[in-house]
Amino acid sequence: MTNDASGDTALSRLQVQGYALPQLSEPGKAKYAQYKRLDASIYVAGRLPTVDGQLSEQGLLGRDVDLDAGRRLARTGAVNCLAVAAAAAGGLDRVQMVQMVVFVASTPEFGDQSGVADAASSLLLDVLGPNGEHARTAIGVASLPRNSPVEIQMVCTSA
Amino acid sequence: MTNDASGDTALSRLQVQGYALPQLSEPGKAKYAQYKRLDASIYVAGRLPTVDGQLSEQGLLGRDVDLDAGRRLARTGAVNCLAVAAAAAGGLDRVQMVQMVVFVASTPEFGDQSGVADAASSLLLDVLGPNGEHARTAIGVASLPRNSPVEIQMVCTSA
Amino acid sequence: MTNDASGDTALSRLQVQGYALPQLSEPGKAKYAQYKRLDASIYVAGRLPTVDGQLSEQGLLGRDVDLDAGRRLARTGAVNCLAVAAAAAGGLDRVQMVQMVVFVASTPEFGDQSGVADAASSLLLDVLGPNGEHARTAIGVASLPRNSPVEIQMVCTSA
Repeated sequence: MTNDASGDTALSRLQVQGYALPQLSEPGKAKYAQYKRLDASIYVAGRLPTVDGQLSEQGLLGRDVDLDAGRRLARTGAVNCLAVAAAAAGGLDRVQMVQMVVFVASTPEFGDQSGVADAASSLLLDVLGPNGEHARTAIGVASLPRNSPVEIQMVCTSA
Repeated sequence: MTNDASGDTALSRLQVQGYALPQLSEPGKAKYAQYKRLDASIYVAGRLPTVDGQLSEQGLLGRDVDLDAGRRLARTGAVNCLAVAAAAAGGLDRVQMVQMVVFVASTPEFGDQSGVADAASSLLLDVLGPNGEHARTAIGVASLPRNSPVEIQMVCTSA
Repeated sequence: MTNDASGDTALSRLQVQGYALPQLSEPGKAKYAQYKRLDASIYVAGRLPTVDGQLSEQGLLGRDVDLDAGRRLARTGAVNCLAVAAAAAGGLDRVQMVQMVVFVASTPEFGDQSGVADAASSLLLDVLGPNGEHARTAIGVASLPRNSPVEIQMVCTSA
């Protein structure tokens, strides 16, 4: 990982935001790869906002989970994707974002998927600086694996 | 923008369809980019079918919004994506489509997401000609930002 | 298609799994392409788990369709994508997976989208071997075209 003289690394900026980069889980019996490369593109598999394998909340935005919790989960999901992206790109400082898709488990009436997704987008910009700039899509889905309120998927490249 | 002698440009074909290419909104306080390039790929962020920032309809296909309105919104969403794609590719005549994903806010019983998406697909072919050919995915989602009935996301390249 | 001396081809492994590679439907009046290439990337359009154009089940996981049926449909949808991928890549043995997105029509309470998607992921690994490795996203959507319980989308390349 590039570590400039000032110590102002992406990892330190992540820590300022209150996050550590989680260990990647063992491949174990997973049926799919955490990421896959095609030329310069790094496709990161959809990630849930687990911490030590646990979800702090379950259910739908608009019914079970409020906006603040949704935003917190979106940040955690983004950090979990960044851990994979950093492993693929050769360090967090080398992650250059391309696209993020934010899936928000939502009631039919919930309409603030952008508010949830903004929390993840801001974290990417705060941590990665200009490399964090990304195209984004936020949608509300019926439900997600393990009844997670949020799931995040990324395409990135190595800077 | 390429403007051949006959004046038969993508922009003129768009006008024949009854659409103008909207101005891109100011980046302002958006937390993400309208598009992001990776090698030849241009990832366009998910776009709602707003006109001058307003949605003409809100809610779900199968409950609040009928098929004709959904198709109209899909076309408008596609035009909004094309405005971004044209800016990225160096003009509408240089936009070459790759993939379009059409998200349709739907009741559990609604099953004509393809009918909604076909309206956007046809517009791409009518306006861009062979460059408008694209792989497509149409799905029904629980809800969308601002309770929009439709959201559209594209990957394209520069011809 | 590469056909090694042992006759152990991807096609034969697909047959061992109980599947044949379906004929691609005629383009006919489809408004979009079954796949689109951009450099090395092959974007396969979203495919339903039809057999001879028919869906064996309709509706939602968690209400109308049980997990076993959902898994069977996920495998069939993956096979339908593979037929397109094989045509694009120059044979099933040359298909190298990159990303699979598994859309599962779900009730708000259903939380085993991963269980559904695992069936498709396993089939890719069984049939394509190491080339079947892929990044994956599984999400629960409100509904799908023709009330299909499952839809599958892929990005792959030619090995």
